[in-house]
Amino acid sequence: MHIVITGGSGFLGLRLAKALLRDGVNGEPVTTLALVDRAHRADLADPRLRLLAGDIADPGFVSEFLSNPVDILYHLAAVVSSEAESDFDLGMKVNIDASRQLLDACRKLAKVPRVIFTSSVAVFGPLADGESLTDASSVDPRSSYGMEKAVGELLIKDYSRRGFVDGVVLRLPTISVRPGVPNRAASSFASSIIREPLSGQSAICPVDPGTLLWLMSPRAAIRALQKAGALPSSAFTKSRVINLPGITVSVGDMLEALTAIGGPASRALVKIEIDAGVEAIISSWPRGWEDQVARSIGFEADANFGEIVQAFIDDDLDEQRARLALST
Amino acid sequence: MHIVITGGSGFLGLRLAKALLRDGVNGEPVTTLALVDRAHRADLADPRLRLLAGDIADPGFVSEFLSNPVDILYHLAAVVSSEAESDFDLGMKVNIDASRQLLDACRKLAKVPRVIFTSSVAVFGPLADGESLTDASSVDPRSSYGMEKAVGELLIKDYSRRGFVDGVVLRLPTISVRPGVPNRAASSFASSIIREPLSGQSAICPVDPGTLLWLMSPRAAIRALQKAGALPSSAFTKSRVINLPGITVSVGDMLEALTAIGGPASRALVKIEIDAGVEAIISSWPRGWEDQVARSIGFEADANFGEIVQAFIDDDLDEQRARLALST
Repeated sequence: MHIVITGGSGFLGLRLAKALLRDGVNGEPVTTLALVDRAHRADLADPRLRLLAGDIADPGFVSEFLSNPVDILYHLAAVVSSEAESDFDLGMKVNIDASRQLLDACRKLAKVPRVIFTSSVAVFGPLADGESLTDASSVDPRSSYGMEKAVGELLIKDYSRRGFVDGVVLRLPTISVRPGVPNRAASSFASSIIREPLSGQSAICPVDPGTLLWLMSPRAAIRALQKAGALPSSAFTKSRVINLPGITVSVGDMLEALTAIGGPASRALVKIEIDAGVEAIISSWPRGWEDQVARSIGFEADANFGEIVQAFIDDDLDEQRARLALST
Repeated sequence: MHIVITGGSGFLGLRLAKALLRDGVNGEPVTTLALVDRAHRADLADPRLRLLAGDIADPGFVSEFLSNPVDILYHLAAVVSSEAESDFDLGMKVNIDASRQLLDACRKLAKVPRVIFTSSVAVFGPLADGESLTDASSVDPRSSYGMEKAVGELLIKDYSRRGFVDGVVLRLPTISVRPGVPNRAASSFASSIIREPLSGQSAICPVDPGTLLWLMSPRAAIRALQKAGALPSSAFTKSRVINLPGITVSVGDMLEALTAIGGPASRALVKIEIDAGVEAIISSWPRGWEDQVARSIGFEADANFGEIVQAFIDDDLDEQRARLALST
């Protein structure tokens, strides 16, 4: 089993790599696992691991890791939402051109690989009152990031229809609680407002507490990514685009969970300072979707936000604190 | 008023050029009109006309005609459905890369131009029984041509949202009756089965007579293209993607109209020989859509198919016969 993960040194990429090296895929062990990223911060030591640093928009680099057999390509690399909005050309280059480059390299492989592409709530526009998203809902992105992800979805579907790749699109809810540091995703605060206070740091909440988010934990995201690699092609006959199950949580409820678990001192570390730009992007995203197709083939949501916070504490808080101690 | 038409020597492009030179736009006369195509067959003599031959996927060529002021860019050039299916790379190059090239050249213009992009029924997938398409329906292309048009739509919308262009997407029903000769569009027969017999030639109908098509005449298409150039931006606040009104006609009804107008001898020139490849593409297209948005801003459908055939006879049949006489 040969696996490639782009964005492999991102937090999902690294965590996925560990899970795949540990579990294999459908009982088959991993033979080689290539992590592809601009730079690497590998905290993994495994003889099966290959660390490849370069630009996935560069065809020469892509052919380095997509010329040998590949069973599964996880394409997680992306320019995130706020950055794609502020630097249009960079977003187009990475989110569209590089994705196409990868798909074209996959076309040339002797055996058609499973390609798993992560997409986002950002492909959808704002909903009318009472309207809900279903598996058949129309994409209508209101950000360049959302547009680029929607283009990626169309490419994956057509390349799969033509038999160039065996593609699966996973539309991820916003991932919370991410470990690490804030990034330029508009949704970055959805992790910061829990992660920073639990580590004793202050955080800014740039949206109204009434704002509803559609969330998934890192644990559930990794489970979904592993499942997308393990399911047979026949599972995706109905649709190759999967709205992954999430939970709808208000920012206010998230802050309450923080108080309940971390105490009032943690909650006091979060200041609400509305950022109109972030609020505009976030409020254009859906607060949930029907996820029958995903559930019918075995994808699962988290139970509640309290459990998500507890999982962050169990999985990440020690490392998060250690990193803070190092950087101060 | 400076206008550019890509695919300018196609039949719609030439006809649109004549109408614009004659009518102007909102009472403003045309100053220059550039027809852009791989090659030209200009039957127009007008001092305002510029004929530019080249490849719109070539940035150098694009900057030739998109560096001076442009008020309206009609982007009609495309690799058609059957060809985009058989030559994937060509379809991607022209239908996606060249469109993006044009949009990026428009970004650099001092004044934001109106960009009119023609799209197609092919962006939609097959409908369940009793299901109908609305202005909110989800795109779900089942051909590379449809995928490429859907990507073009997403680009036009996001470039417009960012203020790079003032874009309008017109989703055209199948145009019938086209003058000229068959092309590699899967829908080419929808003109052939009328045009050829009325000119005394035989024609093949590659689909079952029960097949339903969603049609628009060349006259209605030209009226719609002119209107898309004339309407203020405010007309497109609700949506920049317009499902143009059409009429639903069965292939059998088309053949009956042929008999009624051309006589049984005309009808006898059409042989039904099912082509599974063509039928697969055509049957994946919708037989109509709700067109409230288009009608609310003044776009109009044809009255019935008999009138469409009569308009072909009035506008094109003499020239069609003359062309045949020359080529034999």
